[in-house]
Amino acid sequence: MAGPVRPTISDVARAAGVSRTTVSHALNGVGKVDPRTRERVVKAATELGYRPSLRAQRLRSGQSRTLAVVSSMPVAVAGGPSKLGFFMEVAAAAAETALMHGFALVVVPPLDTDPPLDTLDIDGAIVIEPDQDDPTTQRLRSRGVPIVTMGPQQGMDLPYVDLRAPEVGRLLLDHLREQGARRIALLLGSGHRSWYVDLAEVYARFAEEHGMAPLVVEADESGGEDTGRAACAELLAQHPDVDAICAAVDAFAVGAVRAVAERGLRVPEDVRVATRYDGVRARTTTPTLTAVDLHLGEAAASAVELLLANLKGTEVPQVVTNPAPSLVPRASTTGS
Amino acid sequence: MAGPVRPTISDVARAAGVSRTTVSHALNGVGKVDPRTRERVVKAATELGYRPSLRAQRLRSGQSRTLAVVSSMPVAVAGGPSKLGFFMEVAAAAAETALMHGFALVVVPPLDTDPPLDTLDIDGAIVIEPDQDDPTTQRLRSRGVPIVTMGPQQGMDLPYVDLRAPEVGRLLLDHLREQGARRIALLLGSGHRSWYVDLAEVYARFAEEHGMAPLVVEADESGGEDTGRAACAELLAQHPDVDAICAAVDAFAVGAVRAVAERGLRVPEDVRVATRYDGVRARTTTPTLTAVDLHLGEAAASAVELLLANLKGTEVPQVVTNPAPSLVPRASTTGS
Repeated sequence: MAGPVRPTISDVARAAGVSRTTVSHALNGVGKVDPRTRERVVKAATELGYRPSLRAQRLRSGQSRTLAVVSSMPVAVAGGPSKLGFFMEVAAAAAETALMHGFALVVVPPLDTDPPLDTLDIDGAIVIEPDQDDPTTQRLRSRGVPIVTMGPQQGMDLPYVDLRAPEVGRLLLDHLREQGARRIALLLGSGHRSWYVDLAEVYARFAEEHGMAPLVVEADESGGEDTGRAACAELLAQHPDVDAICAAVDAFAVGAVRAVAERGLRVPEDVRVATRYDGVRARTTTPTLTAVDLHLGEAAASAVELLLANLKGTEVPQVVTNPAPSLVPRASTTGS
Repeated sequence: MAGPVRPTISDVARAAGVSRTTVSHALNGVGKVDPRTRERVVKAATELGYRPSLRAQRLRSGQSRTLAVVSSMPVAVAGGPSKLGFFMEVAAAAAETALMHGFALVVVPPLDTDPPLDTLDIDGAIVIEPDQDDPTTQRLRSRGVPIVTMGPQQGMDLPYVDLRAPEVGRLLLDHLREQGARRIALLLGSGHRSWYVDLAEVYARFAEEHGMAPLVVEADESGGEDTGRAACAELLAQHPDVDAICAAVDAFAVGAVRAVAERGLRVPEDVRVATRYDGVRARTTTPTLTAVDLHLGEAAASAVELLLANLKGTEVPQVVTNPAPSLVPRASTTGS
């Protein structure tokens, strides 16, 4: 596995007949170097195949030219059988945008243990939908790492990409009503992610508008599909008039579908189910789940660009609004 | 966005009443430092919240503690509508394993442009199923970056994780025959990825065993679903007796399903379709596609561990064999 021997700066200096400092200045464009000398150095470096140490360059520049995208979700929600969810969809698009700007992207997916944030040599981080109490942003901030979040973090003043949560909530609730639902229950995750907070507000307003008694249940995120199922089983037992469930998290929606079936009811004829994220779960559950296209690819690209603008220190808008979400109606509400 | 002012090594030296060299030696456990002095330095560093520069540490150690996972597939195949395919499934699992070992993982997904491999500050790289002529491994090797591939690279002597391609091919072909197929065509991608080479060999043997005249077509990977469809349209026009298509790539399988429908035929009643990778495409195409569980999560973890073993320079096996693949029968061959 040993690679070929790498030429050093001393080899270049010897070949060009100059000092190592001159080589460094000539190649990095700093200091005063006679153009003919510079040319000689560049020629020697090219012939020898010399490449300056990336790490030494980065130490000088103070940049690692690396960004990170960090999940803030428990494994049960963001991981799941295939591990291909919201987080990896954002990561894939963010990596592409970062690379186009000459930055590498490190992914920190949901882990069972504390993510090793303190040893990441990064210029900036994108944190996905952090909870109000999520320590991730605090830990990164204490190291002076600039942060952009996807969706705002409640109680923090960080730049973010706006996924238009209130509109997403409205799309789902209006659609459920259009499909005939008159008693829509809201299934939230525990915690204070801004998506939950915004959805709860939109739901309260919607319930008032339609004279519908609000019915909100919470499930522990870390239980994923199972806690979603348990919460819905209890909900359906106590409120047999529920004819729709709007689940904040796709894993909960899968749980909801199971709970409905276990009660001997049908989706969507008896209980309609809709959720936010149009991912693998939404597309592969039976019946397929009505969800929302959030335009995550665009959001990820915007997050990288907002972060890079912040790194440059230019005056930048602190919120980038993503394109309008659009409903993806599927069998779990439409029956076909 | 400016973070708090970071204490420097000079601040610690001043507080502890020692030289900066002593601080460095005390914190890095090098040189001879009196235990009481070390304790004083550690106390001062802790009180001040001093953290040594990661980059300077890494410059000294010669390690970046960063690995990369690099795609070698065109965007049309590995990207696609959702971008959540084989590559990101491997990346997610590899990131988890790398982080558990204290390494960050950079993702280099399929790009329309040349990936900026020369500016990645990495200790090693995992390259996914490189083609025989793929320049990625050569470029990394010329920089002295240790490499592990997922699936061997033809004509190269790099350590790899064995995805057991011949068994995968056999599973698919035997299954198609069990489902009644007697004239199975093979749809390969252009190029010499070892998966194609192995599959072609297994197919040739299978055809001979069953006295079936072999029928192999190739489609250009960079066209994705469209070239798969075009290749199958021609195939079905020229060989109306074809009753099954084994597609090496899931994007081609989606194209095959379309080509069958466009000819007014049915999947699977008239033409059965099966493919290798059990990803989003296999699960969401209508009908859903029979595919193979390759245990990619395990493969990704093994690739990271094999790469780390190589970095340590210990004597390591150069091939890690992944768990046996298992067939995932779906509607595209079974009809239900």
